[in-house]
Amino acid sequence: MYHKKCVCEYDGSRYSGWQSQIGGNSIQQKIEAALYKLYGEKINIIGSGRTDAGVHALGQVFSFRSEIYRENKAVVFALNTTLPRDIGILSSEDAPEGFHAQFDAKNKTYLYRILNRPARAALDADRVWFRWDNIDAARLNQLLSVLKGSYDFTSFCAAESIKENMVRTINALTAERSGEYINIRINADCFLHNMVRIIVGTAVMLTVKGEDESCMFKILSSKNRTAAGLTAPPYGLYLEKVNY
Amino acid sequence: MYHKKCVCEYDGSRYSGWQSQIGGNSIQQKIEAALYKLYGEKINIIGSGRTDAGVHALGQVFSFRSEIYRENKAVVFALNTTLPRDIGILSSEDAPEGFHAQFDAKNKTYLYRILNRPARAALDADRVWFRWDNIDAARLNQLLSVLKGSYDFTSFCAAESIKENMVRTINALTAERSGEYINIRINADCFLHNMVRIIVGTAVMLTVKGEDESCMFKILSSKNRTAAGLTAPPYGLYLEKVNY
Repeated sequence: MYHKKCVCEYDGSRYSGWQSQIGGNSIQQKIEAALYKLYGEKINIIGSGRTDAGVHALGQVFSFRSEIYRENKAVVFALNTTLPRDIGILSSEDAPEGFHAQFDAKNKTYLYRILNRPARAALDADRVWFRWDNIDAARLNQLLSVLKGSYDFTSFCAAESIKENMVRTINALTAERSGEYINIRINADCFLHNMVRIIVGTAVMLTVKGEDESCMFKILSSKNRTAAGLTAPPYGLYLEKVNY
Repeated sequence: MYHKKCVCEYDGSRYSGWQSQIGGNSIQQKIEAALYKLYGEKINIIGSGRTDAGVHALGQVFSFRSEIYRENKAVVFALNTTLPRDIGILSSEDAPEGFHAQFDAKNKTYLYRILNRPARAALDADRVWFRWDNIDAARLNQLLSVLKGSYDFTSFCAAESIKENMVRTINALTAERSGEYINIRINADCFLHNMVRIIVGTAVMLTVKGEDESCMFKILSSKNRTAAGLTAPPYGLYLEKVNY
């Protein structure tokens, strides 16, 4: 068997998310259909993780294996020719036997983009969270820094997805203003369901209300989803990079 | 009569261009329809200039007059509520009697974005010109600098649009790399039809071929459209700013 590791980019606006679903319009299904054309056999791909409907990727990674060998240049070229124009393959490489895009991922970086100005987004309508109220990016950054480290992140997990082990490790978490945009970057070994979006929604809420770090710490310590803020919308979120 | 000056942003992908056309799906028509809802009367708007199908705007300006007065905040809010989500109003202000968005414009800046990497655009599919071949942005910048100044730009005008006076003044023209992107900015008092796109297409062609400034100057001097290169695609072009 031959093993591949591919990196892809997509605009998640038109899709039901990464993961295949019955009757679904998922990115995984589009890529598998394109691989079928190239390999002439059904290929199952494994993503580094799911992304929800509307979430984008700058560097999603997936792996697959096949009985036939195809050159990496041919894989990239053939898939990019077949795939819809809002899904693109950035690279393909031969991976070691047993490489698994999900289990072998060491950590991931997500980018969350906020458009912060009086007028709503037009060019970036499906690509940013629009906030008309003035957000202090320095304060947002301070509030977010409370969450760096290893904690039980139950407060920042979709209520229906509670598991046994809710401890996760956030390695980096920053907010930075760039003109009308605020870019939030978060790197963690592994994420809970909706974790980035709940962290962003909560931190923005606290920033706007003028709350300080103790309030963020109280929410974290409560281990209760209802203590945190709203889930920021999916269309501001980008899976930026998966590290192996 | 009351006079207004508005600034708007749009993703031109889904539209036939700025200018109203019979049976057309133009940005001007969408804005006039939204104004009709707000004012209860037919309002004609005047854009600073046309943009072609697929061309975007970060700061298109239009003017109009009305018999009824509306607060600027109400104009922005009402239009942004009615307009399709890929057209947005950034600001509205009261303009002096007789203000004319086209005739009063002093100069305009266009941005042209190239995505320069091996893999085609996915997230930016309708927003950049994808070039897989390595483009030297410094050389591109040098070639473009030949065109700064006042010249007869017949070579860089769509052949069907030749007028009596083909002299235009380019005040600024630069190319700059930003990661995988190359941003070309051009400021001129006034533009010929397809001028920016033909300049970009020609300069990229010369850069890739390794030609030098003398070649660009020869094309300019020939005053002949066939001497220049292809017209770069519309979807990389953004009307960035109109100065008054």
